[in-house]
Amino acid sequence: MTNTQYDAARSELLARLREIDDLSAAADILHWDQATYMPPGGAAARARQSATLRTLAHNKFTDPVIGRLLDAMQPTVDSMPYDSDDAALVRVTRRDYDHATRIPTQFMSDFTAHISDSFVAWAAARPKNDFKAVTPFLTKTLDFSRRYSSYFPDAEHVADPHIARSDYSMTVATIRPIFSELRTWLSDLAAKIGQRPQVPDITNGRVFDPTAQWQFGEEVVRRFGYDFDRGRQDKTHHPFATKFSIGDVRITTRVFTDTISGIFSTMHESGHAMYEQGVDPSYEATPLADGASSAVHESQSRLWENIVGRSLPFWRHFYPEFQRHMGDQLDDLALRDFYRAINRVQPSLIRVDADEVTYGLHVIIRFELECDLLEGKLRISELPDAWNAKYAEFLGVRPKDYRNGVMQDVHWYADYIGGMFQGYALGNVLGSQFYGAALQAHPEIPAEIEAGRFDILHNWLQTNIYRHGCKYTTLELVERLTGGPIRLEPYKEYLQTKYADIYGIR
Amino acid sequence: MTNTQYDAARSELLARLREIDDLSAAADILHWDQATYMPPGGAAARARQSATLRTLAHNKFTDPVIGRLLDAMQPTVDSMPYDSDDAALVRVTRRDYDHATRIPTQFMSDFTAHISDSFVAWAAARPKNDFKAVTPFLTKTLDFSRRYSSYFPDAEHVADPHIARSDYSMTVATIRPIFSELRTWLSDLAAKIGQRPQVPDITNGRVFDPTAQWQFGEEVVRRFGYDFDRGRQDKTHHPFATKFSIGDVRITTRVFTDTISGIFSTMHESGHAMYEQGVDPSYEATPLADGASSAVHESQSRLWENIVGRSLPFWRHFYPEFQRHMGDQLDDLALRDFYRAINRVQPSLIRVDADEVTYGLHVIIRFELECDLLEGKLRISELPDAWNAKYAEFLGVRPKDYRNGVMQDVHWYADYIGGMFQGYALGNVLGSQFYGAALQAHPEIPAEIEAGRFDILHNWLQTNIYRHGCKYTTLELVERLTGGPIRLEPYKEYLQTKYADIYGIR
Repeated sequence: MTNTQYDAARSELLARLREIDDLSAAADILHWDQATYMPPGGAAARARQSATLRTLAHNKFTDPVIGRLLDAMQPTVDSMPYDSDDAALVRVTRRDYDHATRIPTQFMSDFTAHISDSFVAWAAARPKNDFKAVTPFLTKTLDFSRRYSSYFPDAEHVADPHIARSDYSMTVATIRPIFSELRTWLSDLAAKIGQRPQVPDITNGRVFDPTAQWQFGEEVVRRFGYDFDRGRQDKTHHPFATKFSIGDVRITTRVFTDTISGIFSTMHESGHAMYEQGVDPSYEATPLADGASSAVHESQSRLWENIVGRSLPFWRHFYPEFQRHMGDQLDDLALRDFYRAINRVQPSLIRVDADEVTYGLHVIIRFELECDLLEGKLRISELPDAWNAKYAEFLGVRPKDYRNGVMQDVHWYADYIGGMFQGYALGNVLGSQFYGAALQAHPEIPAEIEAGRFDILHNWLQTNIYRHGCKYTTLELVERLTGGPIRLEPYKEYLQTKYADIYGIR
Repeated sequence: MTNTQYDAARSELLARLREIDDLSAAADILHWDQATYMPPGGAAARARQSATLRTLAHNKFTDPVIGRLLDAMQPTVDSMPYDSDDAALVRVTRRDYDHATRIPTQFMSDFTAHISDSFVAWAAARPKNDFKAVTPFLTKTLDFSRRYSSYFPDAEHVADPHIARSDYSMTVATIRPIFSELRTWLSDLAAKIGQRPQVPDITNGRVFDPTAQWQFGEEVVRRFGYDFDRGRQDKTHHPFATKFSIGDVRITTRVFTDTISGIFSTMHESGHAMYEQGVDPSYEATPLADGASSAVHESQSRLWENIVGRSLPFWRHFYPEFQRHMGDQLDDLALRDFYRAINRVQPSLIRVDADEVTYGLHVIIRFELECDLLEGKLRISELPDAWNAKYAEFLGVRPKDYRNGVMQDVHWYADYIGGMFQGYALGNVLGSQFYGAALQAHPEIPAEIEAGRFDILHNWLQTNIYRHGCKYTTLELVERLTGGPIRLEPYKEYLQTKYADIYGIR
């Protein structure tokens, strides 16, 4: 192939990817609007509009022309370095293309129609605690999810094709040992904490001004490095970050008056958003412009929310300012007690409200149940009991209803069963590993944080993680940054040190 | 053609129109976001995303399959009543299709690329008052506009194909006599008013709380009948109404502290929005779901803003409440003086700030200039002088710069030259004619307005105008509602009575 032919193929591929990205971005804008401002009357048409955009994007991406263009470019990029942008473009696009083209078009549209009904059924049934109403939908979803896996006959485990969607390079075989060790270790730590006197409760009858929380949260993430010229924050029910282009990556949050969870949610979403704002601008509108995986994404959100935002150095700087923002509500709580309060460990039923120590256990429960369901070991009718048994076993609490048990998360009711949760726990592990690498390069980071500055940390993440988008897989990124595989030690050490101090263990 | 074949063609046509409407609605949502919330960094990608959606919608609508489906349905609908929904669907879709397919695809994409550059050039040049910078763009736009017309060799006047885009059924030949008579009459009235003592000025150093204005405006349009469950209001620079579906029709406004124009802008946009909210739901996602024309649309916005919102009965009811909303700022202004102040006539340079009497003159100037430019009588280089001469002649004021003269409106810099303005003045005429018809059917409407209620008027408009969408052309609608053609008398009588009273003429 001549250079000219290569350039022509590359240009056409990029033009097609841009059109596909425009359609997907438009669908994301429609979703953002739906979750923030859309009046109730817009719902019916919006579902149709979103489906039209997603279907068009999918059809254009699975067009055989894409495969032919990748084939045409392959010999040339084979002689380029693995790290080159062109090689990465072809590698990542082909990976996505090969995955997407395995799924028949009819299957996709059947599943899309089903899952839209399933979501509506869940939204109506959950407040009524009616698991029976969603059982037929879940059963069908599980069937769809197993059929989905059947299009990947070479997969080692039935859950692997689902995991590959969000955490490419990870498999059940690589995740299980990590989760097995993590589960035992987290349970032990939670047990030790449970034997110690409880720390203060941040709630405790206090009233926190929502506007002041909102402003404080925005000021903090501005200092983190979230660029409000290329983003904004709006109110929603279930906080998320969303990218419409590298120049427009938005966050959302919710703020309550009886707790300050909203500011941690803002920090969390800013971690996702800074990642996407930091991608190399030349990757715009290509598959390289996404984050590496759900695990790496979550490592970034959790790093800013927990490792930075719930740390003592951070609050040494910000607590006096935050106290002023909150009127007199925190006057009775000294810095150290506030720090202990925002890191309170308490086994509970709800994943999204869980503390740092027990959070991973909520995730591992879901991961194990997904595997059991997909393997055929567990039926949907048996799922609530299995759920409750695992909560009793892992966390020592047992849901009294479905609403706060198996019906709490939207995931299985609005998407596949499989591959939906592992990233949340892997992200915590990776967050500590990446932060450790940053500290090794810049031991002054904690001092910088204590001074209310975050440039060194943000720059390190920008240089080593953000700008690469999804050029590297999760495992490649870990290898590049730490010189080895995923390791639990940094995460364990982080939790051990932090909670031994907070709860006075040993 | 059998019934089954007809049904199949109809189903396929509706499915295709739905997909096209989904793409257009998505583009409208992107535009709304751009005008309300988008951070500056999103601009570049947003332009590309919008173009992708508009181009896809255009290509899908001009697909020959649409023509074949219309052909297949034609014999069957020919035997249906003119008023039937199916006949209207085929009639209106074919009209749009015939118009759209006249324009070559290449022309469309060239024009789209040009006009995007033109808009950017205008936005940069206007604050600098730099007409030279936009001259090459305007010259090219005029060339595009004339070529556009050349695709309609059967058009009587070179501006007619442009007028047909927004005001189908109207032509230069039908508009010119109306505007000619209107121009003389409005000039005479303005001159008579100019000889009378001026009425009070609402501004006059007062400070109007923006939040209170916002809330009052929303309360008023809620009472008009604007449905906030199927709409919402947001802030923007240049107010507009926009429909994403019949269940989601939004308005935007801007509020200043030194004047109360924001509440009239809210009323104006609610007039557009109630029209679109009121369309027969069975027309959803078809070409029938739009308003009949820009003139009819404007008749609805102006009716609510001016005939209702600037009337004495309206303020007899609302003024005490409004005074309370505005703190003590209006305590010195009695109802009648307030009424006179919000109807103050003052020839000025800026169309969007013009009063009811002079507004039409601003529009007629632009209409005449468009005709002269398209006919080749006037060159772009001569446009500023021609503009200023007409302002001097029609309004007795002469712009001292381009910014407040020929560069004030975005229209010619962001779209064709031709067909952009006539609807604004025709709308005022139609508004009075329609309101007259409503009064004839329900003489109690002014009393209802004075009681702060609007149900009878809203219901009459709903039944006679809104629900029909664009089933009927402008002229058909006027004929149906008034039994004749467009007539100036109701508009002249409305202005004559109102301003004779306000200014004490004769």
